[in-house]
Amino acid sequence: MGSWVWGFVTDFFTYETTKSVVVKSWSVGIINRIVQLLIITYFVCWVFIHEKAYQSTDTGIESSVMTKVKGFGYHHNHVMDVADYVSPPQGAGVFCIMTKLIITENQFQGKCAETGKRFSCNTDEDCHKHLGSILSNGVITGTCLNSSDGSKGMCEIEGWCPAENDGVVVMPMLDVNNFTIFIKNSIRFPLFNVTRGNFPSTMNSSEIKSCKYNPDTNPFCPIFRVGDVLNYTGQDVENLAAKGGEIGINIEWKCNLDLSIDYCVPKYSFTRLDEPFSRNAVSKGYNFRFAKYFKTENGTDFRTLHKAYAIRFDVMVTGNAGRFDTVPTLINLVAAFTSIGLGAVLCDLILLNFLKGAEQYKAKKFEEVSDAQIEASLAQSPGSLVSLKGGIKSSCDSGAMSLAASDQQL
Amino acid sequence: MGSWVWGFVTDFFTYETTKSVVVKSWSVGIINRIVQLLIITYFVCWVFIHEKAYQSTDTGIESSVMTKVKGFGYHHNHVMDVADYVSPPQGAGVFCIMTKLIITENQFQGKCAETGKRFSCNTDEDCHKHLGSILSNGVITGTCLNSSDGSKGMCEIEGWCPAENDGVVVMPMLDVNNFTIFIKNSIRFPLFNVTRGNFPSTMNSSEIKSCKYNPDTNPFCPIFRVGDVLNYTGQDVENLAAKGGEIGINIEWKCNLDLSIDYCVPKYSFTRLDEPFSRNAVSKGYNFRFAKYFKTENGTDFRTLHKAYAIRFDVMVTGNAGRFDTVPTLINLVAAFTSIGLGAVLCDLILLNFLKGAEQYKAKKFEEVSDAQIEASLAQSPGSLVSLKGGIKSSCDSGAMSLAASDQQL
Amino acid sequence: MGSWVWGFVTDFFTYETTKSVVVKSWSVGIINRIVQLLIITYFVCWVFIHEKAYQSTDTGIESSVMTKVKGFGYHHNHVMDVADYVSPPQGAGVFCIMTKLIITENQFQGKCAETGKRFSCNTDEDCHKHLGSILSNGVITGTCLNSSDGSKGMCEIEGWCPAENDGVVVMPMLDVNNFTIFIKNSIRFPLFNVTRGNFPSTMNSSEIKSCKYNPDTNPFCPIFRVGDVLNYTGQDVENLAAKGGEIGINIEWKCNLDLSIDYCVPKYSFTRLDEPFSRNAVSKGYNFRFAKYFKTENGTDFRTLHKAYAIRFDVMVTGNAGRFDTVPTLINLVAAFTSIGLGAVLCDLILLNFLKGAEQYKAKKFEEVSDAQIEASLAQSPGSLVSLKGGIKSSCDSGAMSLAASDQQL
Repeated sequence: MGSWVWGFVTDFFTYETTKSVVVKSWSVGIINRIVQLLIITYFVCWVFIHEKAYQSTDTGIESSVMTKVKGFGYHHNHVMDVADYVSPPQGAGVFCIMTKLIITENQFQGKCAETGKRFSCNTDEDCHKHLGSILSNGVITGTCLNSSDGSKGMCEIEGWCPAENDGVVVMPMLDVNNFTIFIKNSIRFPLFNVTRGNFPSTMNSSEIKSCKYNPDTNPFCPIFRVGDVLNYTGQDVENLAAKGGEIGINIEWKCNLDLSIDYCVPKYSFTRLDEPFSRNAVSKGYNFRFAKYFKTENGTDFRTLHKAYAIRFDVMVTGNAGRFDTVPTLINLVAAFTSIGLGAVLCDLILLNFLKGAEQYKAKKFEEVSDAQIEASLAQSPGSLVSLKGGIKSSCDSGAMSLAASDQQL
Repeated sequence: MGSWVWGFVTDFFTYETTKSVVVKSWSVGIINRIVQLLIITYFVCWVFIHEKAYQSTDTGIESSVMTKVKGFGYHHNHVMDVADYVSPPQGAGVFCIMTKLIITENQFQGKCAETGKRFSCNTDEDCHKHLGSILSNGVITGTCLNSSDGSKGMCEIEGWCPAENDGVVVMPMLDVNNFTIFIKNSIRFPLFNVTRGNFPSTMNSSEIKSCKYNPDTNPFCPIFRVGDVLNYTGQDVENLAAKGGEIGINIEWKCNLDLSIDYCVPKYSFTRLDEPFSRNAVSKGYNFRFAKYFKTENGTDFRTLHKAYAIRFDVMVTGNAGRFDTVPTLINLVAAFTSIGLGAVLCDLILLNFLKGAEQYKAKKFEEVSDAQIEASLAQSPGSLVSLKGGIKSSCDSGAMSLAASDQQL
Repeated sequence: MGSWVWGFVTDFFTYETTKSVVVKSWSVGIINRIVQLLIITYFVCWVFIHEKAYQSTDTGIESSVMTKVKGFGYHHNHVMDVADYVSPPQGAGVFCIMTKLIITENQFQGKCAETGKRFSCNTDEDCHKHLGSILSNGVITGTCLNSSDGSKGMCEIEGWCPAENDGVVVMPMLDVNNFTIFIKNSIRFPLFNVTRGNFPSTMNSSEIKSCKYNPDTNPFCPIFRVGDVLNYTGQDVENLAAKGGEIGINIEWKCNLDLSIDYCVPKYSFTRLDEPFSRNAVSKGYNFRFAKYFKTENGTDFRTLHKAYAIRFDVMVTGNAGRFDTVPTLINLVAAFTSIGLGAVLCDLILLNFLKGAEQYKAKKFEEVSDAQIEASLAQSPGSLVSLKGGIKSSCDSGAMSLAASDQQL
């Protein structure tokens, strides 16, 4: 029993290594080394240095954005300030600067004439086809209101009266060009618990108040002139202010946390978000309607309807951070080493097929054993097994052994 | 010296290949090929074709959503239009359509009676237990206001008076069923710099204005009828309009950028977002309170409080894009090739243990060398080293050599 | 022809296995096994158990947040309720509780004196330098309005008059401490189609209404006392209420879907989001301006400007879910097995360089074949090829064979 255990232990603490054929041939040798060099170069330069395969990456960036607009504009002979033209007012990451307002004052609930040309009529029948329309300014009643001067009449609506006429020409507030947007963005990479703000803590109060963002000279200033932002997106302020539009302010954080945290800085870019729709003839620009509600002395509600053409700014924060991690490093290292072995496939092909003396190489590389041989050897000399057995492990443990052996082949 | 360098060079440009035993046995041969076939099939069909392991994936989709609701509804004998029932009005990705309003008009700051049954009282003591309550309509003063007709009194509150009575029955605005929602969604995959809009650029203005989304007949129309959306989520409009609820409109972009960009299209799905809470008895539906503020002639503030039951729509954009990339392809190819080698483990197990002539196979596969043998050979003929040395590299460089050799084993 | 096909088939169904050298040496054997053990331990404990490398992960969490604030506060001798101090009112994931309001009543469009010290002047020239300023309360006209009592005058502005004086001292509404925030959060992992809510479905109505979140005793209660939340972030309510600030309520979902879904629960954490800016002297706190609009009897617009200092709450939902998946499991298993083979590199180094009898081991492991030998054998006996050829495949198919053979080496 004791000797059996001892035998097992001595069998276990062995080391298997593959038997190799060393081919001293210049042609195959050089090809072999070149292929290995190419594979190593690829892995070192592309996979590890460029793609940073040794890092684990946190893409789940957490972000908080605060914005503040400043500036004054003239519109409808009023001076508009932030409280007038920014909506919603809370200074979130998505906000609109209203640049053109079509104002319909003193609307009361009641019945009145539609305004759009489409709703002109001679008889009630002309209006019946619009029943249930959602493109009117109120519920179409089906009645045609004839005008007093004998010209074409208009379909009657029920709702807020008088109806809005959004065909009027209103000059947009071009002063928007000089407005400034202050953006405060703090981010966190939860995986690495790293927190960053979008302007350096070394910037002092007066610097921040006086600077203007410029991608070249002042890339970390958090104050953006609206005119500049529109320029960067290649947009025309007149057009945008008149029709509205959506501008994306993208803050990109690409942080290599293996370097100093000071290199983890934001990069701003600006795009027109409704670009993909520029080829469509419909739904250009951006506008929305809202109302301010009032009460008469006797308690009747009335409202002022605003159709607001606005430039909407979406501050979008994206980014990822990478830091050295053992798991991806190991997996990629193993892949690299294994890939080097792939070079052998090419060399084997050349060696065993295209080289002078290929058959001799084959004879050296491959040792053949066939069923027939084994059977012959079994039949001929059953006793010879003993002589063979010297170097062979006992049957029961060779499973584990050969598994381990095979591992080394992988 | 020169010859030493030359020796090193000739040693370096060699090629090592493992010495193999070719077993010409039908049983093991067939098992070997079948195992290899299974592994290859798995990798080709599942890993590469189904899981697209040859692509790198961008999951950091950037998205911008613009929405516009249209339609008219009757509520409290008023015609409600977009400016009345949509909140917030800016047309963002999250918006509410208010379907039922409990309106408490002309609230002034002061003291008055609570409304809820819970706050009924006979004496001041009955009200003391509510002191500090946050579930009342104002700050509980602790006084019990007795009713004039001798019935139970009500606790007094300080705040906006009269107190809201949200127990009144108000018919919800069921016209919401026929409202339409227009969704403009533009996305970008920053990794690949691909931008897409949610309706094709070939759609013209009249097509877009006249179409209605239908998953089968019109899957790319960006106009959604509210009634249809509620249907898709299996919700009942009466119930939702009365109690409010949250509906998710999910826009999913799954883009295979190896194909034409035209196949990169949105897929809409609709869910009730408060579903996970359907089994809880509490907090069903969705409502919020807001106020409109007015001033009397003499400057006193008063307000109209609205408790709004609303259907909140969350337009959620998710997606990812994949494009062929060398790094994942290589890693997975290497994994595939390596896995094929795993088949050898099984074959070795069979060959060396269960096959007739296993011992002979072992003798062929394994060559044994033991400490004893080496020692014997060292003791016996120290000069024989020379004869061995012919085919062996010098000690100094064999480290590098064997490293390279081992690489081929991986 | 038939025999040629038969030959091909018999050649195809063979099995190649590497020829191994078994080294029965205690030193190398023990090192070999220890290295293998270390590698296996690393993979099992770290890669598989800790890093869960056998799971595929869904990081694209979809989330919907509903919030509701309750509580009453005194400010400017008014009782403020939810409709007064929460903005925006819809109960979204980002909302502000206004804690201090600087109210400027009855502003009409016109011209009047600025308020800030900075804009004091003696002559018009003093005001010219402010022309175009965006830090004033209106458009600077360039005129200096002299005060009647002979003291310094103020620059004139055009805009809403009277100008806001935000230097006045207003007591913040400290009652905010006792407000409560109810958070309803439902999430979905689209990859696994798993939906969860942030409080268990076993919680009944009264439990939810009466509980208060506490990380230790009540970690799943969805009602948060504002004072507690500020405490968790280490913030001082007096300071925050006076200057405003941004608080992040992070809901983290880390779900191991291989376990019961009941373990997939939220984890709340609280941070002050403007922390990264705490070292900057500028832009502390959080405030925004909004206006309420009124009309006089004769239809003139006027407004009440509010400068609101607010605590902004951002409910941020992050998380990921993992579930067993074959692809990552396989890739990591293969990496593990392959890494075990890496142990052989070390052992080879020791065996072939540092062990007694290294040269003998080399002679056993490496078989050498050189160009010279091959040429000699070719020249000497071209007929001997026949004898060699017995165990060798014909040239045409050996490419495929050796490819397969090489696969086993990888």
